[in-house]
Amino acid sequence: MTLSVAILGATGYTGGELVRLLSRHPAVHIAHVTSERYAGKPLRQAFPHLTSAPELICRPLGDLGEVDVAFCALPHVASMREVPKLLARSVRVVDLSADFRLHDAAIYREWYGTDHLAPDLLPEAVYGLPELHRAAIAPARLVANPGCYPTSVLLALAPLLRGNWIDPTGMLVDSKSGVSGAGRSANQDTLFTEMEGGFRAYKADGHRHTPEMEQELSLLAGVDLRLRFVPHLLPQSRGILSTCHLRPRVVRSQAEWQETLRAFYQDEPFVRVLDPGLWPATNHVRGSNYCHIGVAVDGRTGWLTVLSVIDNLIKGAAGQAVQNMNLMFGLDERTGLEQLPLFP
Amino acid sequence: MTLSVAILGATGYTGGELVRLLSRHPAVHIAHVTSERYAGKPLRQAFPHLTSAPELICRPLGDLGEVDVAFCALPHVASMREVPKLLARSVRVVDLSADFRLHDAAIYREWYGTDHLAPDLLPEAVYGLPELHRAAIAPARLVANPGCYPTSVLLALAPLLRGNWIDPTGMLVDSKSGVSGAGRSANQDTLFTEMEGGFRAYKADGHRHTPEMEQELSLLAGVDLRLRFVPHLLPQSRGILSTCHLRPRVVRSQAEWQETLRAFYQDEPFVRVLDPGLWPATNHVRGSNYCHIGVAVDGRTGWLTVLSVIDNLIKGAAGQAVQNMNLMFGLDERTGLEQLPLFP
Amino acid sequence: MTLSVAILGATGYTGGELVRLLSRHPAVHIAHVTSERYAGKPLRQAFPHLTSAPELICRPLGDLGEVDVAFCALPHVASMREVPKLLARSVRVVDLSADFRLHDAAIYREWYGTDHLAPDLLPEAVYGLPELHRAAIAPARLVANPGCYPTSVLLALAPLLRGNWIDPTGMLVDSKSGVSGAGRSANQDTLFTEMEGGFRAYKADGHRHTPEMEQELSLLAGVDLRLRFVPHLLPQSRGILSTCHLRPRVVRSQAEWQETLRAFYQDEPFVRVLDPGLWPATNHVRGSNYCHIGVAVDGRTGWLTVLSVIDNLIKGAAGQAVQNMNLMFGLDERTGLEQLPLFP
Amino acid sequence: MTLSVAILGATGYTGGELVRLLSRHPAVHIAHVTSERYAGKPLRQAFPHLTSAPELICRPLGDLGEVDVAFCALPHVASMREVPKLLARSVRVVDLSADFRLHDAAIYREWYGTDHLAPDLLPEAVYGLPELHRAAIAPARLVANPGCYPTSVLLALAPLLRGNWIDPTGMLVDSKSGVSGAGRSANQDTLFTEMEGGFRAYKADGHRHTPEMEQELSLLAGVDLRLRFVPHLLPQSRGILSTCHLRPRVVRSQAEWQETLRAFYQDEPFVRVLDPGLWPATNHVRGSNYCHIGVAVDGRTGWLTVLSVIDNLIKGAAGQAVQNMNLMFGLDERTGLEQLPLFP
Repeated sequence: MTLSVAILGATGYTGGELVRLLSRHPAVHIAHVTSERYAGKPLRQAFPHLTSAPELICRPLGDLGEVDVAFCALPHVASMREVPKLLARSVRVVDLSADFRLHDAAIYREWYGTDHLAPDLLPEAVYGLPELHRAAIAPARLVANPGCYPTSVLLALAPLLRGNWIDPTGMLVDSKSGVSGAGRSANQDTLFTEMEGGFRAYKADGHRHTPEMEQELSLLAGVDLRLRFVPHLLPQSRGILSTCHLRPRVVRSQAEWQETLRAFYQDEPFVRVLDPGLWPATNHVRGSNYCHIGVAVDGRTGWLTVLSVIDNLIKGAAGQAVQNMNLMFGLDERTGLEQLPLFP
Repeated sequence: MTLSVAILGATGYTGGELVRLLSRHPAVHIAHVTSERYAGKPLRQAFPHLTSAPELICRPLGDLGEVDVAFCALPHVASMREVPKLLARSVRVVDLSADFRLHDAAIYREWYGTDHLAPDLLPEAVYGLPELHRAAIAPARLVANPGCYPTSVLLALAPLLRGNWIDPTGMLVDSKSGVSGAGRSANQDTLFTEMEGGFRAYKADGHRHTPEMEQELSLLAGVDLRLRFVPHLLPQSRGILSTCHLRPRVVRSQAEWQETLRAFYQDEPFVRVLDPGLWPATNHVRGSNYCHIGVAVDGRTGWLTVLSVIDNLIKGAAGQAVQNMNLMFGLDERTGLEQLPLFP
Repeated sequence: MTLSVAILGATGYTGGELVRLLSRHPAVHIAHVTSERYAGKPLRQAFPHLTSAPELICRPLGDLGEVDVAFCALPHVASMREVPKLLARSVRVVDLSADFRLHDAAIYREWYGTDHLAPDLLPEAVYGLPELHRAAIAPARLVANPGCYPTSVLLALAPLLRGNWIDPTGMLVDSKSGVSGAGRSANQDTLFTEMEGGFRAYKADGHRHTPEMEQELSLLAGVDLRLRFVPHLLPQSRGILSTCHLRPRVVRSQAEWQETLRAFYQDEPFVRVLDPGLWPATNHVRGSNYCHIGVAVDGRTGWLTVLSVIDNLIKGAAGQAVQNMNLMFGLDERTGLEQLPLFP
Repeated sequence: MTLSVAILGATGYTGGELVRLLSRHPAVHIAHVTSERYAGKPLRQAFPHLTSAPELICRPLGDLGEVDVAFCALPHVASMREVPKLLARSVRVVDLSADFRLHDAAIYREWYGTDHLAPDLLPEAVYGLPELHRAAIAPARLVANPGCYPTSVLLALAPLLRGNWIDPTGMLVDSKSGVSGAGRSANQDTLFTEMEGGFRAYKADGHRHTPEMEQELSLLAGVDLRLRFVPHLLPQSRGILSTCHLRPRVVRSQAEWQETLRAFYQDEPFVRVLDPGLWPATNHVRGSNYCHIGVAVDGRTGWLTVLSVIDNLIKGAAGQAVQNMNLMFGLDERTGLEQLPLFP
């Protein structure tokens, strides 16, 4: 089987990662890539690192011809304009924007400041975190690929909320992301000079990934909950580390908590609970679809800390999108995604 | 007045910063610098960036001749061996190790795994955070310079604990430090290759700066409290950002909290509460003795977040030590410390 | 004496450095700062690291009131529009753009693609490299502050060309600059993500600093010469290292060449020839007005290599401008510039 | 076919890259990995990024059992002790040290300061740069994998020397390497704090890769030549950029030189000559076995500049070693090596 795929928005960082991964995917042919800025030009002009990928010429948005699946790596709003057209032409869609992640159009309006343009599609859109929703992803027409922060946080918290091991009202997540999360647009704030040695918090009074996490965490906990979430920006290109501060319902040792998490993920191909003595580090998952998880227990204060790391552009975006495509088309979930992390 | 000073342990990063600052201090003559490794050699061989400072030849520990004050930048344990000798010779001391920060020798033994060698000096040692203990520092023979993490955390929390605005039992601090905090010794873990793109937590189950913070926070709060503290290592040389997650006792706006903090620090020369819309960034205090503080309020969950940044080697070590020396000798506290931050 | 100064273009990196240095200069009062983008706003909104400098409100270009000297940190072309107005009002000027560095308006047109707007001022403009033109700078109305690359290259080569020790036709300079040289404008090419781990050459077929270097090198050599110059961009914010590959006219040892350079610079306050065994490193001059120089001899091939490092924003821009101002107003050249480098 | 392989010295950076690549190579089974420091422990303790590779337990050097091929990633000298033993047991060897690259034992002694321990093997050792010696590599028992700098330089210069287009006596190479080239041993000089913002030259009076380049360049040119080579250390983990300054024998345009290079490499799977307007950047080949080459012409001075970039740990070490193994065992040269570069 060879799937014919289109990538909408191929010259952003997520788009580039999709091309990189899908160029070497054994069951995929990249039929179309779009870019307004580079329309008519070879993709390698936007991304010289893709010089050795099969040649692709960027096109403007519009007729994509016949494809089996489209990856929509457009900004939000732009995405919800295009997705209905794709579905109408029987193209299955993995959407990497925020437009179809929230089930509730009112919450979308509250956080994104604009009305949803395709609210009728929200009920059928599947939240594409395979570790939680694998069965629903497989038959879906439209998969909403999770945000980068939510992926790291949900993988850290799912086993504990499912098992009812922690107090769902007392969770606090302190996350740190690489600069690539801010995209590839020219921007003074993310110049090299502004970021080198310049760790900082941002949107500490409210980040748009919060409602997405709350939606999924509430499902896991079985109660409607609120999450305190504070994001920070790291002086490095890739990687997210989420430090999840939790109030456990029981007293257990580090080894016991590790075992709980390990048991939950024992059959998962991309989630690893680290051995005692190792702390998750962003450069130990860089360039891969893997998530590493560690646990710390503070007996003096009772806090339980779960730390998770992912590559925000891969497990947090393009890699997870490919994982979803694999599930949607009956392929082994790991196909094209088993590259090991690049260290150092 | 010209003070004659000695710097013990001049070839570590903190020692180098002391030389850098004191070389340009108008009331100081650096009489002696010690280094076992570079004994007999010019200091500029250890630190080529100090080539344009007055020439200094490193000596081994031992007779320092006549000096007014000694900065002890030795590792812990080594420090408590030397400090009593210095005091016995009527040299006043600013000790930058952890050896004289804790008032209780039992807690020292618990966290540092060794008996204290000079417990009789603990009652007179003054914890050298000028913003809290200015009056006690001035006449002291022995000032224990605070740790880098504690400086950032105490400056963030002091106004809120003093004013009884927050719940002292619910504080959680998520700190992030530059690599220079790990020192200058050869170490695989802090090689460039291991740290580039490699953000990580460490000692998440217990860091030695915790009891020092608890001691001072308990004094501020008037109750014996415990702190959950999780440190991380940033891919940058300098800077600490502490994200302090707090439960306020009252509901107030961001502007109101900012005003509370600003009022507390209005006469302080080195602490600044940022304008609304600006978040503290480590590169906005780099190379300076300043501390920047910001506030975030999350109305949805009730958490209050106070963020503080310092340069860990300056306000977190050498700069604060010079500030203490200024106070001890009746100089304007700001002398030699008003360099503005280096950005970018 | 207190000089009243204006800084035109205060919200670029060079402008920010001028404010940082001049805020702590004992003989200066900053009377005016201009910025189109931040007009009417406090400078600390553009540069939070200047929060602890005296408060300054940005103004648009226009009436500056009475000042003794203006630093013009505007882009080229904009600069040559403003400088004549300043001179007409008897304000002495240090211009940090390229507009008044070249003596020949035809060469300006060739490299900058536009006619010079004030060619009548070119004869009186003094090229502001104090180590070469100190006497002419002192009385000048208009000093053209050298480019960052030229400063590093001219300091490396001046002793050898003056002494006629090298073949002026065989010089080749391979320079590497930090990203701050590209300015603070939003630009995809200098995003953190594009530069981390992304060393590259640029303008390898012709950089605009070339004619400026050729003009000054020709003066030093007493012959009209051409220079092969290849610049590169480093993944770091500050610093220039120029590797100057030269054909010596005589065979001498490394120590002898070092001695030649050291003798030439023995009375210079800001140039240091390093001891044998040390190679110049950009972080050993960071944040300072110093230049470090090293020498390598390759007996097998006969090439002589001189390496120089500066902080591109200080000795390569703002610091040198202050040095020029000091000379123009009879102050000790070192005033306000003796901060030691910030390492690490 | 499945090849059984051993990796000697698996816990250095090159060893880690060999494990990473060979774990996903479709025709390879990793039978043994050695490490003195981690003997008896799982490799993932040394390299947590390899947690998702097949489990491997480190062994000390000694009996490797039956393997088809061994990759020797030991330091020089250690390597020439082990290689004869391996060959004696009919194991074919790709040696990644410097021990078998030089054909002349006297030159080895001159540069490495010790006698060669297996000079009888030098005549049969094949210099493993596939683009130059493909035919000789295929049947070899012992392949000496090229150094990282030589790989980048030889690929840049081969077409021009083979075609007799440049003066072989006037070549000068100014190279810049990422820190991973310095290895993984604890070392003060390569700490993060020493390297951040700290670009520098090193061994500018003679680097050991020089004779290796001279040997191969002399073969290409047909004359015995000497090369001026100056290496520098970049503040980034991976990547080498070599700027090769050359005197052409003819006057040609940039496009013509590009075409010359492109024609030479048209059938090569891993070498790409970039389009006009693009300059090679180290992050455009990071994590891959590709080499990118660019050309600049300076009509004013006559210099021709060829720039090449590789990932020093892949095309400059582990990737090229795998490429050699593929050739030695009749596999498609590209097998296991077609991962595209990781950007950003």
